[in-house]
Amino acid sequence: MILSALLTSVGINVGLCFLFFILYSILRNQPINAQLYKPRLVAEGKFHEENEFHVERLLPSVSWVKRAWKPSEDELLSNSGLDAVVFIRIFIFSLRVFGFAAIVGILILLPFNYMGNQLSFDFTDLQNKSLESFSISNVDDGSKRLWIHFCAVYVFTAVVCYLLYFEYDHIASKRIAYFYSSKPRPNQFTVLVRGVPVTSGRSFSESVEGFFSEYYPSTYLSNSEVRRTRKLKELINEADKVKKRLAGLKSENYTQRRLGRSGFMGLFRRRIDLQDHYEKQLEDIEANVRTERSSVAEKEVPAAFVSFKSRFSAAIASHLQQGVKPTEWVTEQAPDPQDVHWPFFSASFFTRWMCNIAVIFACIFVTIVFLVPVILVQGLTHLDRLEKWFPFLKGILNLKIISQVITGYLPSLILQMFLSLVPPVMIVLSSIQGYIALSQIEKSACTKVLWFTIWNIFFANVLSGSALYMVNILLEPKRIPELLAVAVPAQASFFIAYVVTSGWTSTLSSELFRPKLLIWSFLKRSLWWKSDEELEAPSNPYHSEIPRVLFFSLLGITYFFLAPLMLPFLLVYYCLGYIIFRNQILNVYVPKFETGGKFWPVVHDATIFSLILMHVIAIGIFGLKKVPLASSLTIPLPILALIFNSYCRRRFLPSFKGYPAECLINKDRIDQGDPTISSFYDKLTTAYQEPAMKATTYYETSESSSAPLLRGAD
Amino acid sequence: MILSALLTSVGINVGLCFLFFILYSILRNQPINAQLYKPRLVAEGKFHEENEFHVERLLPSVSWVKRAWKPSEDELLSNSGLDAVVFIRIFIFSLRVFGFAAIVGILILLPFNYMGNQLSFDFTDLQNKSLESFSISNVDDGSKRLWIHFCAVYVFTAVVCYLLYFEYDHIASKRIAYFYSSKPRPNQFTVLVRGVPVTSGRSFSESVEGFFSEYYPSTYLSNSEVRRTRKLKELINEADKVKKRLAGLKSENYTQRRLGRSGFMGLFRRRIDLQDHYEKQLEDIEANVRTERSSVAEKEVPAAFVSFKSRFSAAIASHLQQGVKPTEWVTEQAPDPQDVHWPFFSASFFTRWMCNIAVIFACIFVTIVFLVPVILVQGLTHLDRLEKWFPFLKGILNLKIISQVITGYLPSLILQMFLSLVPPVMIVLSSIQGYIALSQIEKSACTKVLWFTIWNIFFANVLSGSALYMVNILLEPKRIPELLAVAVPAQASFFIAYVVTSGWTSTLSSELFRPKLLIWSFLKRSLWWKSDEELEAPSNPYHSEIPRVLFFSLLGITYFFLAPLMLPFLLVYYCLGYIIFRNQILNVYVPKFETGGKFWPVVHDATIFSLILMHVIAIGIFGLKKVPLASSLTIPLPILALIFNSYCRRRFLPSFKGYPAECLINKDRIDQGDPTISSFYDKLTTAYQEPAMKATTYYETSESSSAPLLRGAD
Repeated sequence: MILSALLTSVGINVGLCFLFFILYSILRNQPINAQLYKPRLVAEGKFHEENEFHVERLLPSVSWVKRAWKPSEDELLSNSGLDAVVFIRIFIFSLRVFGFAAIVGILILLPFNYMGNQLSFDFTDLQNKSLESFSISNVDDGSKRLWIHFCAVYVFTAVVCYLLYFEYDHIASKRIAYFYSSKPRPNQFTVLVRGVPVTSGRSFSESVEGFFSEYYPSTYLSNSEVRRTRKLKELINEADKVKKRLAGLKSENYTQRRLGRSGFMGLFRRRIDLQDHYEKQLEDIEANVRTERSSVAEKEVPAAFVSFKSRFSAAIASHLQQGVKPTEWVTEQAPDPQDVHWPFFSASFFTRWMCNIAVIFACIFVTIVFLVPVILVQGLTHLDRLEKWFPFLKGILNLKIISQVITGYLPSLILQMFLSLVPPVMIVLSSIQGYIALSQIEKSACTKVLWFTIWNIFFANVLSGSALYMVNILLEPKRIPELLAVAVPAQASFFIAYVVTSGWTSTLSSELFRPKLLIWSFLKRSLWWKSDEELEAPSNPYHSEIPRVLFFSLLGITYFFLAPLMLPFLLVYYCLGYIIFRNQILNVYVPKFETGGKFWPVVHDATIFSLILMHVIAIGIFGLKKVPLASSLTIPLPILALIFNSYCRRRFLPSFKGYPAECLINKDRIDQGDPTISSFYDKLTTAYQEPAMKATTYYETSESSSAPLLRGAD
Repeated sequence: MILSALLTSVGINVGLCFLFFILYSILRNQPINAQLYKPRLVAEGKFHEENEFHVERLLPSVSWVKRAWKPSEDELLSNSGLDAVVFIRIFIFSLRVFGFAAIVGILILLPFNYMGNQLSFDFTDLQNKSLESFSISNVDDGSKRLWIHFCAVYVFTAVVCYLLYFEYDHIASKRIAYFYSSKPRPNQFTVLVRGVPVTSGRSFSESVEGFFSEYYPSTYLSNSEVRRTRKLKELINEADKVKKRLAGLKSENYTQRRLGRSGFMGLFRRRIDLQDHYEKQLEDIEANVRTERSSVAEKEVPAAFVSFKSRFSAAIASHLQQGVKPTEWVTEQAPDPQDVHWPFFSASFFTRWMCNIAVIFACIFVTIVFLVPVILVQGLTHLDRLEKWFPFLKGILNLKIISQVITGYLPSLILQMFLSLVPPVMIVLSSIQGYIALSQIEKSACTKVLWFTIWNIFFANVLSGSALYMVNILLEPKRIPELLAVAVPAQASFFIAYVVTSGWTSTLSSELFRPKLLIWSFLKRSLWWKSDEELEAPSNPYHSEIPRVLFFSLLGITYFFLAPLMLPFLLVYYCLGYIIFRNQILNVYVPKFETGGKFWPVVHDATIFSLILMHVIAIGIFGLKKVPLASSLTIPLPILALIFNSYCRRRFLPSFKGYPAECLINKDRIDQGDPTISSFYDKLTTAYQEPAMKATTYYETSESSSAPLLRGAD
């Protein structure tokens, strides 16, 4: 790619970003968009509509930036929990890493790259200069200047490891502090037991009660049995749907009556008929719910939530193997009640294990199948190939602006579209793996999406071959450094464009501006169907955002010494991301769960992987550039990085798996002095009732109280 | 190798075995050899010397076989512990596996191999027939008969997995039963705490006392601090040595005086001088010990043994992370007091971790360096090469008997000698890895020796190249099946000879006959120096025996469908091993520690590895033999084996890491009714005193009581 094409792409994207930012700063001030741009404030009742009209409302402003910038980390912590803080710290960490990298890369490496003569260009024509002249490819083979790159790789690795260590330490201590400051939460006192063995003459809940009151007599509090409620849930969902339709019909009739627009009598009549029909349907479903509810008590599942009187006892029960058979009485720390993922509790140990294996194969399959669109997109950056395949396009492609848009902008846009399909797919795959909490599913999907992205965006683009070809390369590990050294620098321009297009515009501006939802809400408002349902405040989609951020950091780390030109663009990305995500966390996303910073180890591992990938490429590059000594001297670096990682795993990872006995006991003692603890225990005994079972009771009360209301309305 | 060479080797070894067996059955009846052949009985005081002389004593008998055969598994369990039972079960398991394999291999595969025409030989000359005509190499390329081999591989894998599953299950339940039947043992109630943080103004033992009495107030019993006692230990060892010399001198003087052989007065005088010298030296050391002992109290190490009142509390303390920092208050289940490995307690977490990394590199280094002798030995099986290198040997090598001895016997004998150096080296490496128990060191060394053996005996012999060449092969995983398929069958004859030489004679007969010790004790008896020290009863060297047995099972599994001729020899090996090791366990080895069957997972993993190796070879062989469909259809097999292994790891492995809460609590409750438990608690508080500290007190008492005795003697 030539410099002007990159500049075109940057230009388009800067324009789009500005447009989005200006539109956002205007639209967010309109009360009508409050549900779109401040759903969190609306949901928490903190949003107060101003009825007076100000002219300033229509003027773009940057006040939101100031407001997003202001809150300290502690305020963010108390406002949105540790996960949000960890998410924001990814940006801070990346800014530090790439701030250092940019200084070294732009001030030291870039001039040396540019002074090289390996690629001979016309020096006067800067505009048409290939981007490659700024990359390591331009350094002469065997040049002593490559030792500067060698030193840069070592120094950069050391700095990243240093930052990683202190970030891990910081977050680990935050995690403990957050635990100490937290109110008693049901999940801290509860374990989930699965694989309750079948005992003849005893129900599962009796077995659980018997087992835990025998072995934990002093601390056992209660258990909530889990039941097979899928049919009940379906019925309740159906009832809810019918109710909603009924309510919609009624409000329409009411509007029509009020407005005196009884209009076409036939149509109105038909609506009244429909209303009767729905009411009848609702009654049928109610009857079904009642029979199902009475039978559900027998549909027990060999799983239960067991609550204890102290956090320490719950931790003991979850850490120690309970039963003689490791597949029976399997315990684990319970998730928050609203975080529980119910569907898989009936599955046996063996089924869950089989599902796990099946999901591994499914992931491999999805990853390989996805190569098809990637390779098609990759073709777009090679216009000559495109011309050969579709000769009739020749005329259009020769237009400069078209060719620049196609090579600079289109490929990453298409890729982006395909990529947006991946997180939901991975969520589905993770959810059938037998996790018990939505947070666990999201974390597992996060890892899956990350590796998927690295494989399908980085490797597929870099190696640009068929799946079989790529697998073949993996089977010849000796050739990997060499192959990567040839292929990775060649894709520098594509990835710079990717950062600008996908990073700046697609990720960040869309995140802020939420164009899809804006159009959707506009359509709903302007067309005939009224929005009864309230726009629910969304939660931060960590499983799609974290991999995206980490992928950019992978690009930055690998291209740091290959094409330092990428770094300023990345820095802009992280600065924007920092502000935008702070804004979103404060205004948009409601924390759905709290893992206590368990996403950080994913970030750590991904960064280590990126470092090692950089080292492998460095080994290959120095070999190709005929400095074999530098190549050999780089070999210890990945080994040192792995050793560093293994140390961090031992030093920090245990803190992220559970809480230490010291903290648990201290916290328990503090609680014992708290007068509210007995009321908390009362709440605890019912905290883990299944939503469908709760809904049943809710449904019954609504039946007795609101149903007459409904009936009275017709 | 031709058939006659194999027969020569078998002949020599059968002869040697018979000789050893006959000699053993005679020598073991001589009371003078009791310490050699029945040290366990002697140590336990169960051996009663018969003074009357019978002629039967001089006749070979098989009564020891009967006596070794008789005890049931339960008797063995109560007599020698679970580890010995698990060791014997390796033989039972192998006999089952190779019993089945031999039936399939000899009755089905061997005839089909022999009927092939791929290798054209003179059919009439059976004696000079190459062993290869019995192997898969002789089956015609593309022959339909290879599908029989294909089926055999599948069926064999299924049978082995079935047996593995039930054996794992059996041993896991044995482990629990053994725990229930065991008496209270100090290690069940104790944890080792390392990384006690430095608190100003408090000693480590005060910190430990404070921490555990705060967080485990109801169950904490006591703690034994660990001290840096290396210097004290050295002094005590020195004192012991001097004492021994002194005692030796005195007894000699006494003998000489008693016999009236005061002889050369000068020599006698010199001895008396020496005696004075030693006594003076001893007094100096005693003074040093006293000063050292007073200073040792300050040489505290940040580690302590903490005992609890119940097994369950100890398990809680060892399973949960105690302190906020995962590197502080690191707890683990304590080993038996006599199993403790003291030297590494002063090392910090970081030091231990660095040692671990260093040991990994050391292992790799040792493994690679060892290739040198292996490759030299490998040369001996290729006589033509030897002739080329050393032309002057031509004359000798042309003698048939010499060439047969060299190709059939010598290589594996030399290899065997080199191999005997490996287990001690691995023990040394494991002992600096920071393990806290001798049993852990032995288990770790066991794994190290196993992989070392597989790599250096199997792969080095099969691939017979330089280390660099072998590493190169590993870097091209695609070619591995093909390379193995070519190389492994070619080494069939070498490995058959290896089973016979190394398995039958070296391992088993030496094990039984203990020739080295026999010669040693003979020398000691016949020469002038008198054996003061008692021959200590040895413990079973699991770290060298288990890998050897597992290596033979690797050979059996990989050669099962390649060269079924190996199987009968293996069966003989396992039958002999079963009897001989039962005999040794009953008569020779005293159990030094009890891991509760923790060696079985090593056996399981090694068997799975062998299966997968067989599958890889099968994939290669079927490809080479031009049955590509069979080759492709074998690919799922290693994947299935890995899935099976991952299931077993989840199903059984947790049982081998600790004991379930259910068992611990039940066992604790049983103990609470036991009147002896309070005296056990008393013993528990002093159980983990360091031997050097104990020795000091012993030394003091010996100083005050026996020293006057000594002095009175001169």
